[in-house]
Amino acid sequence: MVPLVWEVGHAASPAQPPSRWVAATVPGAVQLDWARAEGWEPYWKGNAFKAYRWMEDVWWTYRARVAPVEARAGHRLVLACGGVDYQFSVHVNGVCVHEQEGMFRPFEIDVTDAALRGAWIEVRLHPAPKVPGSKEDRTEARRCAKPAVAYGWDWHPRLIPLGIWRDTVLEWRSAARLQRVESTYALDVESRTATLTVAVAGTEAAEKAQWRWSLASPSGSRVAHGSGVIRSGSGESRMQVPNVELWWPHDQGPQPLYVLEVELWDAAGHLLDRHGRRMGFRRARLVMNEGAWEGPEGFPKSRSHPPFTLEINGRSVFARGANWVPPEIFPGTITPETFKPLLRLAREAGMNLLRSWGGGIVNPPSFFEQCDALGIMVWQEFPLACNCYDDDPGYLRALDAESRSIIRQVREHPSLVMWSGGNELFNAWSGMTDQAHALRLLNRNCYDLDPDTPFIPTSPVDGVGHGDYRFRDEHGREVHQIFATARNTAYTEFGCPGPSPVEYLSRFIPPEELWPPKPGTTWETHHAFNAWWPTTSWLFPEVVEHYFGPCPDLPTLVKGGEWLQTEGYKVLYEEARRQKPRSSMALNWCYNEPWPTAANNSIINWPAEPKPAYHGVAAACRTVMASARIPRFSWSPGEAFEAELWLLNDSPEALPPGRVTAEIVWGSRVIEAAVWDHAEVAVNRHLGGPQVRVQLPADGSVVSFALHLRVAGAPQRDSVYPMPLVRAAAPT
Amino acid sequence: MVPLVWEVGHAASPAQPPSRWVAATVPGAVQLDWARAEGWEPYWKGNAFKAYRWMEDVWWTYRARVAPVEARAGHRLVLACGGVDYQFSVHVNGVCVHEQEGMFRPFEIDVTDAALRGAWIEVRLHPAPKVPGSKEDRTEARRCAKPAVAYGWDWHPRLIPLGIWRDTVLEWRSAARLQRVESTYALDVESRTATLTVAVAGTEAAEKAQWRWSLASPSGSRVAHGSGVIRSGSGESRMQVPNVELWWPHDQGPQPLYVLEVELWDAAGHLLDRHGRRMGFRRARLVMNEGAWEGPEGFPKSRSHPPFTLEINGRSVFARGANWVPPEIFPGTITPETFKPLLRLAREAGMNLLRSWGGGIVNPPSFFEQCDALGIMVWQEFPLACNCYDDDPGYLRALDAESRSIIRQVREHPSLVMWSGGNELFNAWSGMTDQAHALRLLNRNCYDLDPDTPFIPTSPVDGVGHGDYRFRDEHGREVHQIFATARNTAYTEFGCPGPSPVEYLSRFIPPEELWPPKPGTTWETHHAFNAWWPTTSWLFPEVVEHYFGPCPDLPTLVKGGEWLQTEGYKVLYEEARRQKPRSSMALNWCYNEPWPTAANNSIINWPAEPKPAYHGVAAACRTVMASARIPRFSWSPGEAFEAELWLLNDSPEALPPGRVTAEIVWGSRVIEAAVWDHAEVAVNRHLGGPQVRVQLPADGSVVSFALHLRVAGAPQRDSVYPMPLVRAAAPT
Repeated sequence: MVPLVWEVGHAASPAQPPSRWVAATVPGAVQLDWARAEGWEPYWKGNAFKAYRWMEDVWWTYRARVAPVEARAGHRLVLACGGVDYQFSVHVNGVCVHEQEGMFRPFEIDVTDAALRGAWIEVRLHPAPKVPGSKEDRTEARRCAKPAVAYGWDWHPRLIPLGIWRDTVLEWRSAARLQRVESTYALDVESRTATLTVAVAGTEAAEKAQWRWSLASPSGSRVAHGSGVIRSGSGESRMQVPNVELWWPHDQGPQPLYVLEVELWDAAGHLLDRHGRRMGFRRARLVMNEGAWEGPEGFPKSRSHPPFTLEINGRSVFARGANWVPPEIFPGTITPETFKPLLRLAREAGMNLLRSWGGGIVNPPSFFEQCDALGIMVWQEFPLACNCYDDDPGYLRALDAESRSIIRQVREHPSLVMWSGGNELFNAWSGMTDQAHALRLLNRNCYDLDPDTPFIPTSPVDGVGHGDYRFRDEHGREVHQIFATARNTAYTEFGCPGPSPVEYLSRFIPPEELWPPKPGTTWETHHAFNAWWPTTSWLFPEVVEHYFGPCPDLPTLVKGGEWLQTEGYKVLYEEARRQKPRSSMALNWCYNEPWPTAANNSIINWPAEPKPAYHGVAAACRTVMASARIPRFSWSPGEAFEAELWLLNDSPEALPPGRVTAEIVWGSRVIEAAVWDHAEVAVNRHLGGPQVRVQLPADGSVVSFALHLRVAGAPQRDSVYPMPLVRAAAPT
Repeated sequence: MVPLVWEVGHAASPAQPPSRWVAATVPGAVQLDWARAEGWEPYWKGNAFKAYRWMEDVWWTYRARVAPVEARAGHRLVLACGGVDYQFSVHVNGVCVHEQEGMFRPFEIDVTDAALRGAWIEVRLHPAPKVPGSKEDRTEARRCAKPAVAYGWDWHPRLIPLGIWRDTVLEWRSAARLQRVESTYALDVESRTATLTVAVAGTEAAEKAQWRWSLASPSGSRVAHGSGVIRSGSGESRMQVPNVELWWPHDQGPQPLYVLEVELWDAAGHLLDRHGRRMGFRRARLVMNEGAWEGPEGFPKSRSHPPFTLEINGRSVFARGANWVPPEIFPGTITPETFKPLLRLAREAGMNLLRSWGGGIVNPPSFFEQCDALGIMVWQEFPLACNCYDDDPGYLRALDAESRSIIRQVREHPSLVMWSGGNELFNAWSGMTDQAHALRLLNRNCYDLDPDTPFIPTSPVDGVGHGDYRFRDEHGREVHQIFATARNTAYTEFGCPGPSPVEYLSRFIPPEELWPPKPGTTWETHHAFNAWWPTTSWLFPEVVEHYFGPCPDLPTLVKGGEWLQTEGYKVLYEEARRQKPRSSMALNWCYNEPWPTAANNSIINWPAEPKPAYHGVAAACRTVMASARIPRFSWSPGEAFEAELWLLNDSPEALPPGRVTAEIVWGSRVIEAAVWDHAEVAVNRHLGGPQVRVQLPADGSVVSFALHLRVAGAPQRDSVYPMPLVRAAAPT
């Protein structure tokens, strides 16, 4: 590797050179470099991010000096870049050698000849792409393949990253080398036989070189191999792999990973190049939800709801998971370590699927590698969200190239089980339809490059539901009622907001603004007010006070909000699950966040600090658990409390007959509510139990109570639902 | 042209030669040739078709002898075939020179060298394709690109055509010639500027020859031209055409057709080849129905209904039309003359769109040429219907090649405004989903080859309705009630069955079977009984008797059935139209039929004989007309009759204020029911008028009455609705 020392500067026009150069970190972002040079506060503190606004609209240039090098026989000096955000050109000694629009395409540039006498390498960025005449919001991004979230969202500040965001190296590489190594397979699940195709593309100097591949099983033994000669720049080899060990999501089975190694050899027996990667074998399908063929009834008859049940290796798998958003505002700061705690927490919470949301980036391969190993499925969206993306030919060219690159980078991961065109594109606020060229193009590219992985144009499709994002809506309906009457095939977004912990808030909100929370302060820029259409979102202090009374201080407000978020998410997840098999997915909005929010639907604070609601979600996402359908949240002393008992089973094993006990814990009293001696619970089926009805005590000594479900012999399946008591009549 | 005398014969296996040869008509069908040789009755009489059944399963061979020819400098002897149905190989002197699966791909074979000494040309057919182990019905066709209707439908006998079905010639052609001439354009409707791309492919001998194209306007003046040289087998030229005259459906504007001529010239100035064709310029889009973005309401929120309003050149056009089915069982008998009376009748009925249904063939270009000239839009489906078409690689290869050929043959016609994957594929009885490879492949091919023409995967999609197909359903609901409460975005199939006229019936039903109609007779094989799930369909004698009392003879039964069909269709079309702009299409099932039916939803008997219902449909499809929403069909003397008055306007012009008079004609009495002095009716908008309420006379001297709507000064917009009277209380 030849070290490169990068600098960055900006100018008002592409014709002007920067007047000042500052040290640049690569990968990174121009904003971070400039802020570091200026000694600014971190962008995530207070309202510091507002000072970054001008950086969207200037022309940034990176430069690095390559000292003169000596030629090496059979080798070339190559600048290999994983990605530049967003539109840019590369210049070597002032000569343009590469132009590109799009952050998801790696590129290689041979700089050998120029470097013999020393060279300047420059990467010249365009300003952030914006559709002229648009409002200053996400609609500016409707003609580019850049994630729209950076243009401002209800949980993301307006802060549009630019810069070299993926690993970029200058190194000597064999002139004869492999430029592309791809493996695809057709899997016969019944016989567990994979037909594996390995395809390579070589450089010109690799012509007629021999390439060899071998596949090692999870236990390390070689189970298939092949070889060939590079002709006309490419080679392909196909072999059957018998007795394949199938990859499963973690709640369904193991995650066996194979290792594919590909080497290039010259005629003299020298190894020229080598590539290695892990892969896994699974078949992912999107099949009809049970009962969906029966609808719609009567004439004139429309179509049945589209399929939304994931079937892995022939087995229907209920998806318990979340919507994944970018873990950082500046993707150039993401490393494999960024994903580690977040993905570990997802797996520990019982989640088996993450929807990688279309407003954000497509994560680098290390994300998928970790999901492969953890048994977490990924639904990957292309970078389109909440906009009417144009039929503009220039946009479609960029999207075509970007999407092909994305598919090729990601398709080999067994965790990748579904593609989607993007987020909420078929709703009024986006205004796209099935006829949009962008979506037909994405469907085509997925079909051409990864036909066996399901593709949906967007979420929601017909039958699937997004929202609500409130514990209590403007009609006074609670999540309990909204979801009990919903009849969606999948719940792929639902939110329940909660505030961040007091200590966390104090890290980025100035002390003088901490209490009381007010619009127009840091609370608002960090999304506690005026973030979503109800003006008090996401803090909703009036909802907290509705249940728990006036809040005298911040800890009380936060505690109340955390309680609502925790219990709200339990209701949402468990109800979506109880509707299986008519429903097939429960994914909250959202899992994580890219910067510190004051209040948000997320269950993990940036960068990876679980909120109390995380533990509620983890409780509600256990593969096997006792659950209760509770009709509402708050109760009055003396009322008749009701709940319906359930045993949820998403596992591939049946549960033997057993006993569930329901108790009301009322202060220090324990009131037995029901004993349910249940029958066997079938494989991957839930079982509804008795309706519990208990007269609550009329004494006024306690302010809350809880329903406990105890599973005999399996306390890990117990559930607890704490609820507040109100003195007045119960809210309706 | 070198004359070819074809013979055909069959054998039990491909290894055996036919033991008997009979004269063959090309184009045609092996069944017709064999029946002619045997002197059989026509297949459409009585139950004659049943004798043809064995012909599906044998191996047919066509042969023709080419007498020795002399070579001609610069020319080649070419067998040019427009299409063979279905799987076949071509052999010259016993050597296989071509193999193909699929009837929609023309092919050319150079037979010059073999013909110098004389040659046998053979076309060897496989038996009709069937998925092994299937029931003997349409499911046998679920792995082939052959129209499924031939395997038996509720209005089509089981009769699977095989043979050379398109023009096939042997002729000397210039060795240097054009093998493909294609024109595509991008149209800027606002500036009426088309960017026309002409692309050609030439034979090897055409390399470096010059090609020239010119475009003549409808008035004959040359408006654009270009030229180029064939390089690497192809050439492309692009020019702007300013001031384009736009093509419109007939109710919206004129049908200007341009003529494109392409010539190939050698260096010495000799004309080598010439192609000419008509073309038109229009922009077709599928846009959201008005109000569709407002749905669905509330949370969890699903997607809005997909777009189903055709927009031509920027103007929303309500589609009044029908479902077109094959006009012949044997497509090889179709000529341009076959289409002429049918399409003339469609235009005369006011229809502006035909859905060319996916169970049948894709018509030859003469169909589209006539639709271009008549201003009738075509929604073309690929040959998939009511089956779960496989992800089988062999099927997908055939479908890929066939669909690409279909798109290339049809896309240049301005009348072609929409592609669809096929019929009812997303309903339970088919079992396909958006994930089906066949449909993703078709979407891809349409996007690649004809991206600006809308594509839908099937009909119905979400929001669109198919059915009902009865005047009165099993709950006693009439078309009046079923449709008044329907809220579909488009009504792309609805049927109202009626019997064929007595004279027509007597042509194919033996005299001794004519009265009374009975299951198990020719009435049943010609679809009067047990055709669709209610066992008395499509004759429904009990429905006729419900309204008109016991039928003593065939003329009475037929007359009652005709009345129901005529008035039923008026209700259906007019109600679907009144729901504009929320609804966007009214297409009945079905327009025509491929053989004589005893009773059917069709409005034109085979081959082109309008049934009385045709005239009712024509009345209901007038671009501008008075209309009444009538709550039910039969009334009692003395009852209060009610109806709601409307003025329907699908035209691009506003209607000035005027007067509509409603009258009840009761025997010889005329009772004025309402005078409606209406305001202006806006462009392409309907206007709802007053509710009429009239006490019907109590005298029992008449058995029926009629509502007449008279439009002052425009009697062509008058409407009449005759209704029966019953003595008892009105049916509910």
